[in-house]
Amino acid sequence: MRDVSEKTETLRTAIARAQLKLSPKTLEAIRRHEVPKGDPLEVAKVAAVLAAKNTPQIIPYCHTLPVEFVGVEHELGEDIVVTTVTVKTHYKTGVEMEALAAASVAALTIYDMLKMLDPAMEIISVKLLSKTGGKSDFKAKAD
Amino acid sequence: MRDVSEKTETLRTAIARAQLKLSPKTLEAIRRHEVPKGDPLEVAKVAAVLAAKNTPQIIPYCHTLPVEFVGVEHELGEDIVVTTVTVKTHYKTGVEMEALAAASVAALTIYDMLKMLDPAMEIISVKLLSKTGGKSDFKAKAD
Amino acid sequence: MRDVSEKTETLRTAIARAQLKLSPKTLEAIRRHEVPKGDPLEVAKVAAVLAAKNTPQIIPYCHTLPVEFVGVEHELGEDIVVTTVTVKTHYKTGVEMEALAAASVAALTIYDMLKMLDPAMEIISVKLLSKTGGKSDFKAKAD
Amino acid sequence: MRDVSEKTETLRTAIARAQLKLSPKTLEAIRRHEVPKGDPLEVAKVAAVLAAKNTPQIIPYCHTLPVEFVGVEHELGEDIVVTTVTVKTHYKTGVEMEALAAASVAALTIYDMLKMLDPAMEIISVKLLSKTGGKSDFKAKAD
Amino acid sequence: MRDVSEKTETLRTAIARAQLKLSPKTLEAIRRHEVPKGDPLEVAKVAAVLAAKNTPQIIPYCHTLPVEFVGVEHELGEDIVVTTVTVKTHYKTGVEMEALAAASVAALTIYDMLKMLDPAMEIISVKLLSKTGGKSDFKAKAD
Amino acid sequence: MRDVSEKTETLRTAIARAQLKLSPKTLEAIRRHEVPKGDPLEVAKVAAVLAAKNTPQIIPYCHTLPVEFVGVEHELGEDIVVTTVTVKTHYKTGVEMEALAAASVAALTIYDMLKMLDPAMEIISVKLLSKTGGKSDFKAKAD
Repeated sequence: MRDVSEKTETLRTAIARAQLKLSPKTLEAIRRHEVPKGDPLEVAKVAAVLAAKNTPQIIPYCHTLPVEFVGVEHELGEDIVVTTVTVKTHYKTGVEMEALAAASVAALTIYDMLKMLDPAMEIISVKLLSKTGGKSDFKAKAD
Repeated sequence: MRDVSEKTETLRTAIARAQLKLSPKTLEAIRRHEVPKGDPLEVAKVAAVLAAKNTPQIIPYCHTLPVEFVGVEHELGEDIVVTTVTVKTHYKTGVEMEALAAASVAALTIYDMLKMLDPAMEIISVKLLSKTGGKSDFKAKAD
Repeated sequence: MRDVSEKTETLRTAIARAQLKLSPKTLEAIRRHEVPKGDPLEVAKVAAVLAAKNTPQIIPYCHTLPVEFVGVEHELGEDIVVTTVTVKTHYKTGVEMEALAAASVAALTIYDMLKMLDPAMEIISVKLLSKTGGKSDFKAKAD
Repeated sequence: MRDVSEKTETLRTAIARAQLKLSPKTLEAIRRHEVPKGDPLEVAKVAAVLAAKNTPQIIPYCHTLPVEFVGVEHELGEDIVVTTVTVKTHYKTGVEMEALAAASVAALTIYDMLKMLDPAMEIISVKLLSKTGGKSDFKAKAD
Repeated sequence: MRDVSEKTETLRTAIARAQLKLSPKTLEAIRRHEVPKGDPLEVAKVAAVLAAKNTPQIIPYCHTLPVEFVGVEHELGEDIVVTTVTVKTHYKTGVEMEALAAASVAALTIYDMLKMLDPAMEIISVKLLSKTGGKSDFKAKAD
Repeated sequence: MRDVSEKTETLRTAIARAQLKLSPKTLEAIRRHEVPKGDPLEVAKVAAVLAAKNTPQIIPYCHTLPVEFVGVEHELGEDIVVTTVTVKTHYKTGVEMEALAAASVAALTIYDMLKMLDPAMEIISVKLLSKTGGKSDFKAKAD
């Protein structure tokens, strides 16, 4: 685990995105609120927020830090659910992993709630879109 | 959460796979054991096994169940790390989510340990390869 | 912790209920979906299911057991939210604490999401309604 | 989850109270130290402190924060155990949920340790008594 | 993680012991109930039971299993606290690690509650005393 | 739990050490990388870091705090593995328990991975070597 004890606290933000590919028919079940277990998008939001806060137990070498904000947004395409997670903190290290873990868990949760309809869904991308506040900012290239 | 109280216990297996795309140079750092924080592949194995066992706390509507086996294998390509996770149980419901969560966490852990070298890595696939033991088996189509 | 190693597994069920009293105005905000943080009833369901599964870590002398079903229902009165939680397992000991902990956490989660509107809400009852499957069944007297 | 990144840290306190109603005979068993599993009041204290620290994993939209103090006091009436929990932090958001969750878990733990004697016990109140340090202080009306 | 899916469930027991050496004066504070934070022996019991149930998250390659009994006993010598933990399950693998982890956590908890009086305390032994129920039983040699 | 709300944050460090005694033959298996489950020293490092971060859930009256560094080093003797853990934070209370818990968990993890070869291994010492940053520093006497 990296030693961050001599670093200064700054505002850190990270935005990550996960994309879950599914059949148009399955996506229609989300849109029409016909998923028997509940609303996958709402449940995925809760799971993502919990995952962001629990990241230091899920990813071994992440630092414990005070998570000041987790925002989770879903966009539905024709055969895709795109989940974007924003995380903020004031701390000595970044929150990329919190954002990436939360986005992954959101996609996995949606998968879980729909898998009886379609086990062939696939997470086709989890990536960092941007981060700010550390030694160097990062912004992903457009897809 | 689905009611599984009337179901019968059978041997359930699930195999999931995550693919992390990274630059050949970053992958070389893994191969040469030059990653300052330790061996990402070994740490990812540990994180994946813990995630498989903790899946009912990470994915809200997963059942608690006795995880009888978690196997984690990494294969290195030119610009990719492919992680395959096998999970087994004897229980009333399957272990797809355990395998998918473990594979995702393995890829995220490798990302975490390499992100100082290359924050543009991307998880380009997390999918279920196969499952057996439930009402219907599943086998993913070849890529 | 009680020794249950010599006991026989039977189907165990428990139903618990929590009642959160709040102002009619605050309750109206739930009904009209005007709570800024999201739908308290949906989030409370997720939190309750997770709590039922995590009860052995929350309540020290509860046994770890395979939770086979958690059902969470909310009813809205004029100034009250009534949450009923049903839990099932096949195991050597009952699931009262799982049901009671889940019902409590549901009420607490609703409180959390509404507390900016009304910090004077009060949980006015958490009780076991019934349990079956052990040495003696239990059924609460009518209120 | 609310964005608290722009807020200032202040000393926050919250006091919450849970009331568990039980038969005078059951309460006598506590007083005489005749509960087979151990001292319910002592075990409830430990469970309450752990719950206060684990609140961000139990209540989905609570912030992670450094808990600087948890105090747990029990008072025994004729047919009631009253548990009062005080929580303090210096942070950007309050600790009401930590205090309420801890008080609830204390009452549930006492219930768990006595349920073989009396499954009809009922938590008849969980409420916030006061909080200080945020934009507006709060003090509950007398019962 | 070892594959236990083909193994048969049997009754498994394990007994482990931890020894914490401390000054006679500090031990006297326990005996006289003069430790400001509470009764270290009682708190250590609770912590040990929780640790036994949480062992699969603390020790990476331990299996999740239903813990059917955890018994914790303390004996006080002149300058030593000896904690003995017994764990039972019916499962496909043993509970040595549950017993050893619980005994260690008991000793650490006592250390924590007394460290202001005496930071030089030392855990001088944590060992498995016996296990039964697997392919081969084990019994430690006398000290 | 001690009230630390009025204390000042300072840099706190703690170093703890655990010693696991095992047969020379078992130790040879580590050295030759012949342990079937993987490299015990590497897995123990991961487990130790996770334990340091999870200490407030394992040891009941420990404060939650931001762990800024966990360093884990193993030294192999003829019949002993010595694990030294260093923890740092800037906070109002020390990190002794984080270091001691991490060192204990490292030794337990190594035990777990080798117990099929030798169940008679024994943790013969867990102690605090030094701490700095609080009201009074501490340095253990030489063995």
